[in-house]
Amino acid sequence: MGVEERRQQLIGVALELFSRRSPDEVSIDETASAAGISRPLVYHYFPGKLSLYEAALQRAADDLAARFVEPAQGPLGARLLRVMGRYFDFVDEHGPGFSALMRGGPAVGSSRTNALVASVRQAAYDQILAHLGVSDPPARLELVVRSWISLAESTALIWLDGRRIPRAELEVQLVHDFAALTAVSAAQDEEMGALLRRVVADEPADGPFVDLVGRLSSLAA
Amino acid sequence: MGVEERRQQLIGVALELFSRRSPDEVSIDETASAAGISRPLVYHYFPGKLSLYEAALQRAADDLAARFVEPAQGPLGARLLRVMGRYFDFVDEHGPGFSALMRGGPAVGSSRTNALVASVRQAAYDQILAHLGVSDPPARLELVVRSWISLAESTALIWLDGRRIPRAELEVQLVHDFAALTAVSAAQDEEMGALLRRVVADEPADGPFVDLVGRLSSLAA
Repeated sequence: MGVEERRQQLIGVALELFSRRSPDEVSIDETASAAGISRPLVYHYFPGKLSLYEAALQRAADDLAARFVEPAQGPLGARLLRVMGRYFDFVDEHGPGFSALMRGGPAVGSSRTNALVASVRQAAYDQILAHLGVSDPPARLELVVRSWISLAESTALIWLDGRRIPRAELEVQLVHDFAALTAVSAAQDEEMGALLRRVVADEPADGPFVDLVGRLSSLAA
Repeated sequence: MGVEERRQQLIGVALELFSRRSPDEVSIDETASAAGISRPLVYHYFPGKLSLYEAALQRAADDLAARFVEPAQGPLGARLLRVMGRYFDFVDEHGPGFSALMRGGPAVGSSRTNALVASVRQAAYDQILAHLGVSDPPARLELVVRSWISLAESTALIWLDGRRIPRAELEVQLVHDFAALTAVSAAQDEEMGALLRRVVADEPADGPFVDLVGRLSSLAA
């Protein structure tokens, strides 16, 4: 194999191992063995475990960011629901690695890994603003979108810890949460109110946003 | 000064420095100078910067957890709003140290600091369950409470980054967010619906929960 091909193979092997156990628990020896090469050869391509981990994380980050991309067509609620499905696919596939990374700690908290996590959050933020058709967000919209992204992370982490709630329910719940957090902000601020009215105006009766309003109305009654 | 007295003084000096600049940027030299003692004497009490940082974080964690404690009297919305006021006081007082810790990174991500952060989150979680009168939470309630705690953290972090929204507005918003996330879960799940109805039944007309319902009704109309 060529250098780049071998590097890519090792990254794939490492990601596969991190999808089953925390990166802390995966050794270079085990990676070498799973790739069918010698330990010194792994070090030839990656000077240490951190550099292999960072390369694997880079690939996972690119993969996740790509799953956020959704055509700008149709109602927003349905778009967000499709993205949530792909997001939970990713979380499902990379469970232990995702948990270890997001829970932080010395083994995974290099400045490079932090920058990668920040870049994925930024990609999610940029996508949401693009779908909302907003290029210069007011502070309250930025707060709602960024804090909802952290809510989506914590929801996924809690789901991974025992999977006690069906993921399909949580995918819908996160779409509802987005609408609810936006509505809370809109209830205090006219600019957010105008944005919410514009978004809801394009929602179909069978979409997740209108579904939420109906369910909340039943609950209130 | 006695040993424990001197340790407590150094912790206080360090916390004061971390309240103005990120812990990464505060040296042992500077801490020694601010405390009016020699650098070797600091090392006599704390073997390295990490141990001083961890001791300071322990005191800050105890301080924050104490602010979560609220008498079990009166409507829940008003209790939560008072806690949010004290939470933002803390965030305001410890801005740069809080940001550095919560954004993670090698300088602040030891297993001991992670355990301290987890213990503060657990203290918040335990307090909320106690106020709700629930000792054996269903998975959906645990998810709502824990994910709301992470929303409160991200909201505080975003607020610290430029303070572009008045903190009093965000204190109310987080109380509303808690009600909204609970309502979203209640809209899908009967057990959560029963819990929400029980909580709302005790809320006064001028409390933050009823205020939110009124505002959302106006928005929907």
